[in-house]
Amino acid sequence: MLTPFRVDTNSLYLTDELNRVGIEVARKVIVGDDRAALREAMREALERAEVVIAVGGLGPTEDDVTREAVAELLERKLQLNEAILRGLQERFRRFGRQMAEVNKRQAMVPEGATPLENKRGTAPGLWMETDGGIVILLPGPPHELKAMFEAQVRSRLEKLSGGLRLHARELRVTGLPESDLDQRIAPIYTGYSDAQTTVLAAPGEIQIHLRAWSREASAANRLLDEMVERIRFALGETVFTTRGEELEEVVAKLLNENGATIAVAESCTGGLVAQRLTSIPGSSSYFLGGVVCYSNEVKAAWVDVPEELIQEKGAVSSEVALALAEGIRRRSGASLGLGITGIAGPGGGTREKPVGTVHMALAGSAGMKERSFHFPGDRERIRQQASQAALDMVRRYFLAKQREAGGKN
Amino acid sequence: MLTPFRVDTNSLYLTDELNRVGIEVARKVIVGDDRAALREAMREALERAEVVIAVGGLGPTEDDVTREAVAELLERKLQLNEAILRGLQERFRRFGRQMAEVNKRQAMVPEGATPLENKRGTAPGLWMETDGGIVILLPGPPHELKAMFEAQVRSRLEKLSGGLRLHARELRVTGLPESDLDQRIAPIYTGYSDAQTTVLAAPGEIQIHLRAWSREASAANRLLDEMVERIRFALGETVFTTRGEELEEVVAKLLNENGATIAVAESCTGGLVAQRLTSIPGSSSYFLGGVVCYSNEVKAAWVDVPEELIQEKGAVSSEVALALAEGIRRRSGASLGLGITGIAGPGGGTREKPVGTVHMALAGSAGMKERSFHFPGDRERIRQQASQAALDMVRRYFLAKQREAGGKN
Repeated sequence: MLTPFRVDTNSLYLTDELNRVGIEVARKVIVGDDRAALREAMREALERAEVVIAVGGLGPTEDDVTREAVAELLERKLQLNEAILRGLQERFRRFGRQMAEVNKRQAMVPEGATPLENKRGTAPGLWMETDGGIVILLPGPPHELKAMFEAQVRSRLEKLSGGLRLHARELRVTGLPESDLDQRIAPIYTGYSDAQTTVLAAPGEIQIHLRAWSREASAANRLLDEMVERIRFALGETVFTTRGEELEEVVAKLLNENGATIAVAESCTGGLVAQRLTSIPGSSSYFLGGVVCYSNEVKAAWVDVPEELIQEKGAVSSEVALALAEGIRRRSGASLGLGITGIAGPGGGTREKPVGTVHMALAGSAGMKERSFHFPGDRERIRQQASQAALDMVRRYFLAKQREAGGKN
Repeated sequence: MLTPFRVDTNSLYLTDELNRVGIEVARKVIVGDDRAALREAMREALERAEVVIAVGGLGPTEDDVTREAVAELLERKLQLNEAILRGLQERFRRFGRQMAEVNKRQAMVPEGATPLENKRGTAPGLWMETDGGIVILLPGPPHELKAMFEAQVRSRLEKLSGGLRLHARELRVTGLPESDLDQRIAPIYTGYSDAQTTVLAAPGEIQIHLRAWSREASAANRLLDEMVERIRFALGETVFTTRGEELEEVVAKLLNENGATIAVAESCTGGLVAQRLTSIPGSSSYFLGGVVCYSNEVKAAWVDVPEELIQEKGAVSSEVALALAEGIRRRSGASLGLGITGIAGPGGGTREKPVGTVHMALAGSAGMKERSFHFPGDRERIRQQASQAALDMVRRYFLAKQREAGGKN
């Protein structure tokens, strides 16, 4: 973790889990595979916190020094644990291999420590209680760490932390610039001193995280629900979920609920919209097909965009977006057709149609809608924002339908 | 950075940059916005290292305490820097806004510190030399941090670190399991005690990072080039780049070099292959179009897969993959047609065709090739591995062509 290669996701997972059981993370320290450095880092941590979790360094090689470092620090002898050794030998037998002598190191347990079984790998974890606090050793591979935490660590920590818990909510927003969003909701969240608000922006999406520490679940939930309602009211339909869903999940749900099907004809997004719509399990119930039509010939031959229209208005135009949407709807027999054309760059921009110009259209039984955008950023950000706006068109189509149906009742 | 929301990428960027100028990262510490905690963390760091970089906490709000913490630690007074203040006021004027009083805090500079201009934001950085070492304060937003590091920090650090530099190489491999790869190359890299080797596996791809610290560029480069050559020889054509390229970049280059064009008909990958092929700037020179054909009707109507064939062999079969490849090639007029069909799951698997079964085919002027796979993992991993294998089929098609051309000469 001191190289430039590996993003730290374990500590995010652990922070989330610890917060949920009422434990705040006071500090994160990353040290190399050095016994003295690790021992000193853990000593400092134990002076500061009641619970210290060390991740990684439990493997069989000489680089794996966490067991030794913690045994030294707590002045406990390492003893061979026969049960762990048998488990390791058994595991190797199951995979038809002979256990190497070095793996024996993984069966060494400091006196008084409770081993934590690793069902996904060879490295057992350890749970140790001392005068200074609790030390937990977990394996580094994320799937091993998660399985061990869920099965053996979470419930133990829940007992420790009394009734204090972190309660959290998340809203996700699309179609609103971050500065506008903050102007609208800052007057709300600054009024709640008992809750922390974090606003995170990604291309085409803003996440609003609300968190409150409390011993009383009902009070915290009331507070957070009230904040969610007020923020949702201030932001209106730009809020697409309060359940942490991806936009494509929300759109998939709306398509299924309405018994609708969709097909996509995309140019500048190059398959990204189809890929997102089909990333959801069971997407074959609503997704009929997609066409990535880069060349003008393909736009004409595969989606019936009139060549005169392309010549007259240009391939990147509202008119061509509408023709793509209508063409793909007719060709696929889907209830909705989505058409996207634009300039993702870096080349291809002009003064009239700069890089970032994107036109999109949605065709349904009740008619057509179209929207035009100028997205900032590089090719990847432009494509991401365009796919987000296209999915949002589908979402808003169903919201409008619901409103109309409500109005008629 | 002590919440569960934000992945730490700044420290990876800085580690890479520091390594390049010959500075090794000994420790990373993440503390909250607390002046005492920050001061103590920096004190500990200065005892341990010659250079300490603090990232973030330079904004105008009360939470931003890095300037104060470092001034306290080094016992230096904070003084208002008139030039920075004027720059801030100027910046606000340019955006048509009035500077708030709180922003004045950003113009406070500890005695003897050198301000580092921030062209992308309001928070200036700071460079401070002390008896104990060098302290550098950088802003948290990644684009501000990067711009400031490149323009004002890198060259200063280069002077400090003498001639010691980290030299690095990277190989990327596809189509080989990690255990096989390690068995083939461990005898090589374990023989080089002067170089560190890191092997990182992702779905469908393994990266091999080679690093050597040296004062002599030529010796390090000789060593690393020799390792690259030996590893490349051991792994053969599974190595697709030694320049850190994505597989789609390598394929794009091969298509362009060969004056070839491609079209894709994909089922289980749902647009992912098209999206990757079009993520490269200038992809319109080789990518003609793609079809995402989820339903059997679309496979028949859009890519001319005979319905009898689907009934007889099943939609997930080598025969249908071949028909997709040939159909999309004919329909698009591309020199290469790529067809992919499979079961990404979680539903849809059977005993004969379990989740992860993927058939793919490539059609060219010289004939057709097909391959079948059983990929492990969840929907996302299966789709990722399938797209990787599909792109690799295109790469290997050109490698075979080159070999044949070589053989004929």
